[in-house]
Amino acid sequence: MNERILSAGNLGIKRFFALDSRAYEKGALDVKTKELLGLVASTVLRCNDCITYHVVRCVQKGVSDEEFFEALNVALVVGGSITIPHIRRAVDTLDQCRKKQQEDKPIKL
Amino acid sequence: MNERILSAGNLGIKRFFALDSRAYEKGALDVKTKELLGLVASTVLRCNDCITYHVVRCVQKGVSDEEFFEALNVALVVGGSITIPHIRRAVDTLDQCRKKQQEDKPIKL
Amino acid sequence: MNERILSAGNLGIKRFFALDSRAYEKGALDVKTKELLGLVASTVLRCNDCITYHVVRCVQKGVSDEEFFEALNVALVVGGSITIPHIRRAVDTLDQCRKKQQEDKPIKL
Amino acid sequence: MNERILSAGNLGIKRFFALDSRAYEKGALDVKTKELLGLVASTVLRCNDCITYHVVRCVQKGVSDEEFFEALNVALVVGGSITIPHIRRAVDTLDQCRKKQQEDKPIKL
Amino acid sequence: MNERILSAGNLGIKRFFALDSRAYEKGALDVKTKELLGLVASTVLRCNDCITYHVVRCVQKGVSDEEFFEALNVALVVGGSITIPHIRRAVDTLDQCRKKQQEDKPIKL
Amino acid sequence: MNERILSAGNLGIKRFFALDSRAYEKGALDVKTKELLGLVASTVLRCNDCITYHVVRCVQKGVSDEEFFEALNVALVVGGSITIPHIRRAVDTLDQCRKKQQEDKPIKL
Repeated sequence: MNERILSAGNLGIKRFFALDSRAYEKGALDVKTKELLGLVASTVLRCNDCITYHVVRCVQKGVSDEEFFEALNVALVVGGSITIPHIRRAVDTLDQCRKKQQEDKPIKL
Repeated sequence: MNERILSAGNLGIKRFFALDSRAYEKGALDVKTKELLGLVASTVLRCNDCITYHVVRCVQKGVSDEEFFEALNVALVVGGSITIPHIRRAVDTLDQCRKKQQEDKPIKL
Repeated sequence: MNERILSAGNLGIKRFFALDSRAYEKGALDVKTKELLGLVASTVLRCNDCITYHVVRCVQKGVSDEEFFEALNVALVVGGSITIPHIRRAVDTLDQCRKKQQEDKPIKL
Repeated sequence: MNERILSAGNLGIKRFFALDSRAYEKGALDVKTKELLGLVASTVLRCNDCITYHVVRCVQKGVSDEEFFEALNVALVVGGSITIPHIRRAVDTLDQCRKKQQEDKPIKL
Repeated sequence: MNERILSAGNLGIKRFFALDSRAYEKGALDVKTKELLGLVASTVLRCNDCITYHVVRCVQKGVSDEEFFEALNVALVVGGSITIPHIRRAVDTLDQCRKKQQEDKPIKL
Repeated sequence: MNERILSAGNLGIKRFFALDSRAYEKGALDVKTKELLGLVASTVLRCNDCITYHVVRCVQKGVSDEEFFEALNVALVVGGSITIPHIRRAVDTLDQCRKKQQEDKPIKL
């Protein structure tokens, strides 16, 4: 669907998608930290698709379970109990990623 | 006002305030990373008081200007142009903190 | 400003304002319960003007301090730490109302 | 389900539903413009059911693809990357409507 | 999934879940009122899982249909038409609970 | 403050600000319609600075009072009573702009 949207010819949308990708590239902050920022932002704003994306990216960048739950705890305290269904989603995605890692399967988006 | 609220005798609120403080303490993630998470969460949720708090804490923990703007850029992309007034607030607080640092004055909350 | 808006001749807005007032009138639920619902809804949505309004109405309807803090605790748990600045506002308004009550002064909106 | 809700006898809810319908009727602004306003409001507030409704209405009122993507671009810039899953939904609904138009089938809500 | 999350060993998250449960226990306000507060807060914040939970709890605590719709009307006026899909969800859950009550079946979470 | 932010050297933020400006330029939709879209999006998301900006731009582009209130009515119905303080702000800014127009003074941002 992203390809469909980008092919529609709206320059503003195309550029926004480019900005979105670049925001998580290595800079003064490393990619792992930026993906954790993206995960917490997505969780407090309660966007399941965004959460799934950033969980996979966090796993790819070597975030440990302990780091993962500490980041989710910040989101939970800041955003309150309405984030709980989204934290469940994040942990479910994490568990699927960890299972693939144990089976030496690739973790893809 | 926090003292007034904590003195009101509601145990749930008292415990919530304790959880809030502990969420940013050192664990698997260091305090600097957690404060950046708090800053981005506060910015996308557009809470000025929370932003001011986390900017000061970030400065105290040695966040550089470049790291600071990269974190704000993640918040801006995730949360959109409605976060701009809050990003202005964050940068204004940063500038005040940097000025105090140059004058060797303490940066307090 | 409400009078200015109502005088502008937009029927939809005028009717919305009427619906808004009626939502808190006595029905199967009493006014006190409805004002507590309004207070919690306003707090999790972080609308300071709405919070001030519903705190004053709660006090007028005899809500005790204990009931008041229990309702705010629900809002805090559901909405998270970003509601804290608004809970401060609510408690500050409560304190002003209580002071007026002690001085036998009317509590007006 | 709307009929079930309206039959429940709560006058406030019934009147709100009436206000909701009337807000998009022709006035000083035409229906097409109002439906675009509804589409952008629904997108930044991330309500998929509302988005689907307003996309169908926009198509019925002759909104072109170019106009459609420009309105979505405003929503994307204002609301940020968390609106992207909802923009995907909007474009998917648009594509379904266009397909029905090509097959000369009615576009219904 | 809650058990999975609680078993992950993050003390902050564990304590938050405990605070969440306790917020709805009997205090100066009775459980029924607190569940109505939870229902309205969940509806204006548009969290379907939370809505389902609080509807079931409201039914268990004897909330009548009339009280139920009055609380939803407050949520609708405060939160606007974007809450309508969630109000549909709430009424659907209510209808399922009422059907179970008529068949003398237990209403479980 | 915008100049301060743009001078900080973060390319992502700089590009975002450019996208933000371009989103309201004439395309398939005219500037007036786009500014109304921006006004309604800002009102339902409750961003006062954004509202002030778009009200001034709407006046500059010849939006009539009737059109203005119809757009605000869409925002009010979609976003609910929590938008009322922001609708007050919008109308107050409108009145200031109209006064300047009567006095033949320029309406500036």
